[in-house]
Amino acid sequence: MSSCFCSKSQETEKRGAVSEDQLVISDDSTHPANLICELCKVFYNNGWVTGTGGGISIREGSKIYIAPSGVQKERMVPDNMFVMDLESENYLRTPLTLKPSACTPLFLSAYKMRDAGACIHTHSQAAVMVTLLYDKVFEISSIEQIKAIPKVTEKGNLMYSDRLVIPIIENTEREEDLTDSLQQAIEEYPGTTAVLVRRHGIYVWGETVWKAKVYNEAIDYLLELALKMHQLGIPTVKQN
Amino acid sequence: MSSCFCSKSQETEKRGAVSEDQLVISDDSTHPANLICELCKVFYNNGWVTGTGGGISIREGSKIYIAPSGVQKERMVPDNMFVMDLESENYLRTPLTLKPSACTPLFLSAYKMRDAGACIHTHSQAAVMVTLLYDKVFEISSIEQIKAIPKVTEKGNLMYSDRLVIPIIENTEREEDLTDSLQQAIEEYPGTTAVLVRRHGIYVWGETVWKAKVYNEAIDYLLELALKMHQLGIPTVKQN
Amino acid sequence: MSSCFCSKSQETEKRGAVSEDQLVISDDSTHPANLICELCKVFYNNGWVTGTGGGISIREGSKIYIAPSGVQKERMVPDNMFVMDLESENYLRTPLTLKPSACTPLFLSAYKMRDAGACIHTHSQAAVMVTLLYDKVFEISSIEQIKAIPKVTEKGNLMYSDRLVIPIIENTEREEDLTDSLQQAIEEYPGTTAVLVRRHGIYVWGETVWKAKVYNEAIDYLLELALKMHQLGIPTVKQN
Amino acid sequence: MSSCFCSKSQETEKRGAVSEDQLVISDDSTHPANLICELCKVFYNNGWVTGTGGGISIREGSKIYIAPSGVQKERMVPDNMFVMDLESENYLRTPLTLKPSACTPLFLSAYKMRDAGACIHTHSQAAVMVTLLYDKVFEISSIEQIKAIPKVTEKGNLMYSDRLVIPIIENTEREEDLTDSLQQAIEEYPGTTAVLVRRHGIYVWGETVWKAKVYNEAIDYLLELALKMHQLGIPTVKQN
Ligand SMILES: [Zn+2]
Ligand SMILES: [Zn+2]
Ligand SMILES: [Zn+2]
Ligand SMILES: [Zn+2]
Repeated sequence: MSSCFCSKSQETEKRGAVSEDQLVISDDSTHPANLICELCKVFYNNGWVTGTGGGISIREGSKIYIAPSGVQKERMVPDNMFVMDLESENYLRTPLTLKPSACTPLFLSAYKMRDAGACIHTHSQAAVMVTLLYDKVFEISSIEQIKAIPKVTEKGNLMYSDRLVIPIIENTEREEDLTDSLQQAIEEYPGTTAVLVRRHGIYVWGETVWKAKVYNEAIDYLLELALKMHQLGIPTVKQN
Repeated sequence: MSSCFCSKSQETEKRGAVSEDQLVISDDSTHPANLICELCKVFYNNGWVTGTGGGISIREGSKIYIAPSGVQKERMVPDNMFVMDLESENYLRTPLTLKPSACTPLFLSAYKMRDAGACIHTHSQAAVMVTLLYDKVFEISSIEQIKAIPKVTEKGNLMYSDRLVIPIIENTEREEDLTDSLQQAIEEYPGTTAVLVRRHGIYVWGETVWKAKVYNEAIDYLLELALKMHQLGIPTVKQN
Repeated sequence: MSSCFCSKSQETEKRGAVSEDQLVISDDSTHPANLICELCKVFYNNGWVTGTGGGISIREGSKIYIAPSGVQKERMVPDNMFVMDLESENYLRTPLTLKPSACTPLFLSAYKMRDAGACIHTHSQAAVMVTLLYDKVFEISSIEQIKAIPKVTEKGNLMYSDRLVIPIIENTEREEDLTDSLQQAIEEYPGTTAVLVRRHGIYVWGETVWKAKVYNEAIDYLLELALKMHQLGIPTVKQN
Repeated sequence: MSSCFCSKSQETEKRGAVSEDQLVISDDSTHPANLICELCKVFYNNGWVTGTGGGISIREGSKIYIAPSGVQKERMVPDNMFVMDLESENYLRTPLTLKPSACTPLFLSAYKMRDAGACIHTHSQAAVMVTLLYDKVFEISSIEQIKAIPKVTEKGNLMYSDRLVIPIIENTEREEDLTDSLQQAIEEYPGTTAVLVRRHGIYVWGETVWKAKVYNEAIDYLLELALKMHQLGIPTVKQN
């Protein structure tokens, strides 16, 4: 797999048949396949997944649901979903005409290394811009919205004056290299719930899909605010 | 209570039973529980209550309705509402699985000190940014939109060339300290219908929910405009 | 009348009875009372009529329909509309609990001096900001969108390289003085279909409600673009 | 034809009768006439086709569907559509009261020179602004979103570190001259799927309507990002 966009040369793995519709068709609006479609529309309207960019995955027990590559996010339907068994990494369902998301190994990293319940990847312009201004990490402190972000290494959320630190990894031509550096960042920053990718975007995960969504929203708010602070020459880490 | 976000360690006070559904379930779209849900969606779409931030409360006679902590604002339903008796400060209704908003003592200040009918709290980025540029108060004059803001100490609204002054209080780690300084600001600025909180957001109240909404909207417009004026080096208080 | 916002001291003129409902209640979505409500929602979502600011009026033959003062634009209903006879300036319909828009004499100027079919007034932030950067007139040339603006003094629209000139009048505490200067601007600039009001907003009119809407939209686009050009030091009137 | 806006002096060519309704009336939401209306609403909400500006056309086999001139994009209905035979350039359907889009010869260029399936023209402010900052071409490299853009001259999309180059042509008073320079740009830049028009906007095409939409979205994202990078003094082509 070579990118989060549709890779033309990529062979669709056909371990699961497209007839496994019961895995994704449900009247329950909280079914992962339905939630992915709903959230993709929200993210599209925020400008985070423009032009088929970005991705989202939800885990339910040992099954992970993944939005496909190359489909317009605001037009996603449950029938488009890939379903994978987390342990074996075999596809339980593969839509015949679609290609799996190149984000899949990155989502798997969050599931396996952090026991995440969902993982969101956006091409948010605020995320891209912040990676052009910061070097190894993005840092911000003493903004109330920081309280929405979890400490991860212990229970509870960051305090108002705590410093939020999000590592920035370098983008790569080849997806495999991005997986390696994402895993390294997750190890080096045990307290982070997100990783920025330079000139690319951001990965955010959480214990549940709703927590992942809230973390992503709060982080994007902080990235936007940081850019406005930078424009006025105000440091994002408050000096005392 | 430690923040407007969900405080994990906080004990939910169970003075009222969740069976008191008749307090919040109504076909009337103007019922406070319905209005709170409707307005939360509007505020979410404005980017004012991102990531479960912010809050809103409406008073109807001696009953106050308060949106809970930690619930995504755009997904709020009437069943999520807390109801409190204003005088005794006892909860008349407490949703079992939710925590009361940490904004509650701040909302109570507006109700008790100003006889407000509703109080809105947002994490508007314009509000946060303005508190990074102004010291003790935000001031603006000679903008038509100022006419939407009430004089408070006497009948009627501000005139075009009047100076709108909104006090800025310092944010605190602990909610109790914020309540004290909010009350002090309300006393020191008898003509204000809003208080800015540094690096946090804004509290706005009004005689009715619609007035509070209009004041909040008009103030946010003025805060945004002030930031644009600042960028161009134009003072927000017109010099004659 | 003292402002486009609700003037508390102002006596509602009760020349028409509120029972004249047939003037505003219609199943036809193109009825002026319905169109005003629909367009107010559009303008609200554009941030042009925040906090009850701004106004709109449509003329049908000798009857003019006017949105009331002090009502939230996105919650307007046909029953809120005032109806006036253009020639006598008598109200044909006066909603009992509402106050007529203070914009009324300004709308009348566009109807009487220019035979307009509709007049739109917004508090667009782009309009306000432009009046802080330009002196007597706003000018822009050589932008394709200019072709959406009419020549007024002759048939057809401006050409690409034509110069769009919109006069700027000073805002006033008292509405009457604004009416005078608006009329003067209309006389001095026979080719204009809009007048900017310093630190206040803009008035735009057209032969029909749709033309007024398109002109207002195109002008606001040009005002926004002019602000971006200013930020980059690019003159809005192209130098050859 | 003199502009993308309604040209008053232009004779409507009545080669086809308006009774040819079967060409545009369909229950199928993917019918070109329905898709044009749907996408015009999306583009309007993005601010790309404000004030009747811009245009869109879809080809189905030898028939091309074209949105008319002078109609508000968000209020377009299938009955407004022109239908033309690509080879003969004869109109198969001409709505009686409407004028054909002045973009028609430009759309035809994309169909004939590139075998496009759809062509989108917007007055995006990001497009206009970029043409004020760049000379002969707009260039950007090493941004992940570039991967959404096709190579055109060979299969597949651009790589992350590839340089996206979009030619900029000069705007003209007369439409004919724009057609000539657009065709010249298409010839000179065989790898481009878009052409910017100075002080005017952008033309984007693709093999299908969905590809054209995705390309246009991804390019606009890159144009916006380029403007933000310029503001911070960061070159859009990454230097190694
Ligand atoms: Zn990506
Ligand atoms: Zn708060
Ligand atoms: Zn006004
Ligand atoms: Zn055009």
